[in-house]
Amino acid sequence: MASRSIDVPRAVRWHDDALRIIDQTLLPSEYKEIDLVEVDDVIEAIQSLRVRGAPAIGIAGAIGLVASLRQYVEGTGLAFRARLAESAERIRSARPTAANLAWAVDRVTAVADEKADADNAEAWDAMRREATAILEEDREMCRRIGEHGLTLLRDGSTVLTHCNAGALATGGIGTALAPIYLAAQQGLKVRVLSGETRPLLQGSRLTAWELSRAGVDVLVLTDNAAAAAMSRFDLDLVIVGADRIAANGDVANKIGTYGLAIAARHHVIPFYVAAPSSTFDFSLAGGDDIPIEERGGDEVRGAFGRPTAPDSVPVFGAAFDVTPAELVTGFITERGILMPGEFEVLRGM
Amino acid sequence: MASRSIDVPRAVRWHDDALRIIDQTLLPSEYKEIDLVEVDDVIEAIQSLRVRGAPAIGIAGAIGLVASLRQYVEGTGLAFRARLAESAERIRSARPTAANLAWAVDRVTAVADEKADADNAEAWDAMRREATAILEEDREMCRRIGEHGLTLLRDGSTVLTHCNAGALATGGIGTALAPIYLAAQQGLKVRVLSGETRPLLQGSRLTAWELSRAGVDVLVLTDNAAAAAMSRFDLDLVIVGADRIAANGDVANKIGTYGLAIAARHHVIPFYVAAPSSTFDFSLAGGDDIPIEERGGDEVRGAFGRPTAPDSVPVFGAAFDVTPAELVTGFITERGILMPGEFEVLRGM
Repeated sequence: MASRSIDVPRAVRWHDDALRIIDQTLLPSEYKEIDLVEVDDVIEAIQSLRVRGAPAIGIAGAIGLVASLRQYVEGTGLAFRARLAESAERIRSARPTAANLAWAVDRVTAVADEKADADNAEAWDAMRREATAILEEDREMCRRIGEHGLTLLRDGSTVLTHCNAGALATGGIGTALAPIYLAAQQGLKVRVLSGETRPLLQGSRLTAWELSRAGVDVLVLTDNAAAAAMSRFDLDLVIVGADRIAANGDVANKIGTYGLAIAARHHVIPFYVAAPSSTFDFSLAGGDDIPIEERGGDEVRGAFGRPTAPDSVPVFGAAFDVTPAELVTGFITERGILMPGEFEVLRGM
Repeated sequence: MASRSIDVPRAVRWHDDALRIIDQTLLPSEYKEIDLVEVDDVIEAIQSLRVRGAPAIGIAGAIGLVASLRQYVEGTGLAFRARLAESAERIRSARPTAANLAWAVDRVTAVADEKADADNAEAWDAMRREATAILEEDREMCRRIGEHGLTLLRDGSTVLTHCNAGALATGGIGTALAPIYLAAQQGLKVRVLSGETRPLLQGSRLTAWELSRAGVDVLVLTDNAAAAAMSRFDLDLVIVGADRIAANGDVANKIGTYGLAIAARHHVIPFYVAAPSSTFDFSLAGGDDIPIEERGGDEVRGAFGRPTAPDSVPVFGAAFDVTPAELVTGFITERGILMPGEFEVLRGM
């Protein structure tokens, strides 16, 4: 089968000792990379969604934490450790819903804890290696998710996705989009329907951008057109990402995911969630326990620089919703396509 | 029970011999009324959604047609009749989905046909009276729809609606919003959740605006948050308007309506369609026969003056979808709350 190379953006990585990200708030109009070394800037970038997507903010949190500590290596051990503890706590709570952020920050701080008696430089080096490992592992997890998901696709498949669970959301080729990239690499023709994903339009701004530039056929739709699209187009499956998955398989993901899952069930279209093990939170029994971020009403009332609702009108601004496990056909993970009863294999990954 | 007056905008009416509309493309930032007497301007106003909503565009089509003919009354009968035929045909096909537009234009032309032997002035006067009657009847139908719909509400009810089927969409107090206005008038506390309705945001720009100014409690949500809102809020019912209803009860309405109906069914929330008899098209057996307008991709890619998707990316731009009758709990009409088998009472209204 013909194989072609696919070109995906690198959302988050090291640049020297700085955190380098693509400023995703500027896409698709402008492509700009920015380098961050101050903890305040790392937190601002995560909170204002310059870097977003559960795996990518985990990596950004880990690299950003380490990058921000570089300037304190020359100081006393006490000051360095105090700064580490404070910055780690601030970064890990920068956004509440994604499981990966706390998970990645905790991995980096755990390495420092193991090096409790080491000098600052040695501890910092170990943390830097751990942050790099998180990035490299994520890249590998994306590839494996892609390989498992690829088994669901055939030449001519049409896939609906929501938000952006692509390269821009990860350190690699994405989660939900990974199977699509691998299909494209193998020369399979796969068509993607991308819900625009109000309020911040990650579907039309980011997913459409990265798929188009990789040569994948993509059609944008308003979120409210998804049910009509399920009737109109010969849709094979829905694949979305996830921000946190509870032990029972309930999924927190971008607002709108739950409605898509209901509509997919109504149309008897398989509904898959693609996510690495770092997205699973076995400490939470079910979706009711997942903290859901509420964002400011202005993202809805005036996101495009023009008032789109009366100033004073209140907004339901939940950034995520919870899809019950029973609406999910399967979870595409780096360890295979799993059902809720099969999550044990992901523990302690 | 306390009764208070409610203040609703007048979307469409006569002003002297001109069609006066509120330019709804400017809301909520600016309130501006414009007067139209040229057929090209009437068509432009309908096509660019300065006036929208199935009943309102019917009225605007009727008044606009008559207003545009005023300048030809002094000419020959032949020229006047030719202009009438041409303008009527152009206006009735200005937008394809709403049943009311062709219905209202046809009523006005039928009156002229009855006056085939009359002079221009007499024919024009009769058409003007007919257009006024359409407006007055619509106002009365809104009130009756409101009274029938009011039986579904109680103090403390929460209602989800979509797009704008309010005063701005009709000659009166709206269709879907009519029961809410009457509830407010009686001092009942009713809360409205308004989906913003991409791409043109009639829900956040128009419904939130007219309800807020009438003192009704309204919460705006992105369309994709509707399913989460059904889980989160104690939602009593969904009420939407309609652009065309086929003989079997299939409903064409603003894109997103179908997804709401599916989600409402999933949550066991009653789903009502409010519409006057002029919205019913008994010549169409089912929803597959309803022409669905597709609008330009730029409304999705850059509606707010800022690119929200790559320039070249294709868009699924259906402005309406079709909700099958089996997902509709009932049709709130001026003749009562009906089920599909009971539409006979609406024929020939």
